[in-house]
Amino acid sequence: MAPAVNQHSVGIVEPRVARFTEPLALACGRDLATHELVFETYGELNEQRSNAVLICHALSGNHHAAGYHSPEDKKAGWWNECIGPGKPIDTNRFYVVSLNNIGGCHGSTGPTSINPQTGKPWGPDFPPLRARDWVNSQARLADYLGIDCWAAVVGGSLGGMQAMRWSLEYPERVRHCIVIAAAMKLSAQNLAFNEVARQAILSDPAFSEGRYQEQGTLPVQGLALARMVGHITYLSDHAMANKFGRDLRSGSLDQGNDENVEFQVQSYLRYQGSQFSGSFDANTYILMTRALDYFDLAREYNNDPVEAFGHAKCSYLVVSFSTDWRFSPARSREIVNALIAADRPVTYAEIEADEGHDAFLLPIPRYMDVFSAYMQRVGATN
Amino acid sequence: MAPAVNQHSVGIVEPRVARFTEPLALACGRDLATHELVFETYGELNEQRSNAVLICHALSGNHHAAGYHSPEDKKAGWWNECIGPGKPIDTNRFYVVSLNNIGGCHGSTGPTSINPQTGKPWGPDFPPLRARDWVNSQARLADYLGIDCWAAVVGGSLGGMQAMRWSLEYPERVRHCIVIAAAMKLSAQNLAFNEVARQAILSDPAFSEGRYQEQGTLPVQGLALARMVGHITYLSDHAMANKFGRDLRSGSLDQGNDENVEFQVQSYLRYQGSQFSGSFDANTYILMTRALDYFDLAREYNNDPVEAFGHAKCSYLVVSFSTDWRFSPARSREIVNALIAADRPVTYAEIEADEGHDAFLLPIPRYMDVFSAYMQRVGATN
Repeated sequence: MAPAVNQHSVGIVEPRVARFTEPLALACGRDLATHELVFETYGELNEQRSNAVLICHALSGNHHAAGYHSPEDKKAGWWNECIGPGKPIDTNRFYVVSLNNIGGCHGSTGPTSINPQTGKPWGPDFPPLRARDWVNSQARLADYLGIDCWAAVVGGSLGGMQAMRWSLEYPERVRHCIVIAAAMKLSAQNLAFNEVARQAILSDPAFSEGRYQEQGTLPVQGLALARMVGHITYLSDHAMANKFGRDLRSGSLDQGNDENVEFQVQSYLRYQGSQFSGSFDANTYILMTRALDYFDLAREYNNDPVEAFGHAKCSYLVVSFSTDWRFSPARSREIVNALIAADRPVTYAEIEADEGHDAFLLPIPRYMDVFSAYMQRVGATN
Repeated sequence: MAPAVNQHSVGIVEPRVARFTEPLALACGRDLATHELVFETYGELNEQRSNAVLICHALSGNHHAAGYHSPEDKKAGWWNECIGPGKPIDTNRFYVVSLNNIGGCHGSTGPTSINPQTGKPWGPDFPPLRARDWVNSQARLADYLGIDCWAAVVGGSLGGMQAMRWSLEYPERVRHCIVIAAAMKLSAQNLAFNEVARQAILSDPAFSEGRYQEQGTLPVQGLALARMVGHITYLSDHAMANKFGRDLRSGSLDQGNDENVEFQVQSYLRYQGSQFSGSFDANTYILMTRALDYFDLAREYNNDPVEAFGHAKCSYLVVSFSTDWRFSPARSREIVNALIAADRPVTYAEIEADEGHDAFLLPIPRYMDVFSAYMQRVGATN
């Protein structure tokens, strides 16, 4: 057994696959004739089917949010800190559902899947997606699992955007909406960083206009660069200073020694980039960043977030982190202000944390306390 | 005449070239056997030769700081707002010298120059440079022009770092040091962005390990990406929001319309990137970002900025801008605190400005006032 598989872990988990054969109409006007969703569940669905919690993943996330895939598995799911026995999303009380979204590259139907019409990988021809498409496909998954109403829909970053969209599109099917480190729409600076990431991929000759699978190439350099840019925006200046400062990995900065100078932070970033580019699909990355760019919670509600949230019926927890400069606390306060004006019950916590946007993945004590306390309330209103 | 060539302009200017045939010893241990510097001057050197002001340029700057190159020239020099009759660096009173640094790509000896030992372009074999190398070559230019002591050495960003280095290396040759939007060394986040920029260039196949001139290729994609990343860090989140918001250049964000959606900010960034990559040398960009990375004002002074500034004899003006997140006001305050502790005369102004790091190039009224007032004082202590 991996040492981390203990009483606080959901233990060994196994992904399942749900296959949907009814066409899924997409926001772009096209539809997916059939699609598959890979998902995991943790905990037990109660008799009333009232304790289900949906986890929506962010840009590079997937269905494996908690536990381990084998006794030898050293790496737990991406939100293992928050999901498990005694953790904020307590699997002793909740039935947790975590999926890989359509368009993803971890088992659900996406650009690397075979397009049934051509017999070849979809690649760049996979339909563009909006957050609402993910929400609609997640609603299908809820039907498949016999869940009429989620106790909570939960997400950080892009996941928080899906959670908000759930509360507007399916107000009868969400009791609580938990929005962590998110925003109602991207800022110009957010859009700019996403554009750099996409251009890095598009300009890699190995990208082959998105047909790299057919060509037998992989745009590893472009994807690595995209990830490096993203990674800088996930960490705060402060966190980088604490973690790396100006420490050298090799060489010396003394005069006469300009060869082989390498800073720790630079080596770390390159490592992160190359790890990512070996495990993530470039077309998925492009598709996901476009969905982020196009997300605008209130667009169809006269650009009025208060009008938008007027359609919701659930309660909200909104959480932000002090050094998050990707989706700063100011962006969360915009959500909270709109919720208050729309007369929705909302709890807001701004957590002091040095770790920037990445803080939403980390077991920061006050964050865990706030999250746990709110989830207790979710349980109490069953 | 270009309409902008008026009484507030230095008018039509002509670059000059100074050729140096004594070897220049570099910090890396190698030397440049000969080198050329291209420079411009504005205003007249007075009889006492006491009114000379040196302009040090930043990452992508050059010698053309003010005025126009021809009556048809529509674009003034890069610091035209600050240099000219009646402007902060008043050419009615000062003799202004502005050069392209060695390692540059606008006429001074750099990677695109011919290496006399091989008869081919230096390319990636051009020696790595430190800010002190630029300062030493600028001192040669001062000798060439018969200037024993600068009334002021002035620079923004990387230029401010050179100005500070001048004050330590040649304390007898600088009366005033003007440091705008700079820092004593890069932060981990700064280092990270520079690494992304370099990796973008290095991973462009057209870079050809730096021998693109010989190969007849140009790493335009990599250089464009590098510039896009840099550009985001020059602008504040606020400035981008004001200038672009989420405005579209083409397409529509309505459902069913995902084709051809392009945000203004994304189109702008790509334009900036492609403009830059057509006019700047990739090896120079790499060399300059490395010099930035390696700059550490106090490294040879026991890492003690107070000890470092203890060697200086000049007065200082330090200026920062409220929304500059590349070199934030906090970084300028570190300089100011060290100067105070070292008992150096220092004036500090933090300018409220929305424009981020780029503010140092713009005619922001309070900035112009502070800068002009300080330069009056420079004049008064001739």
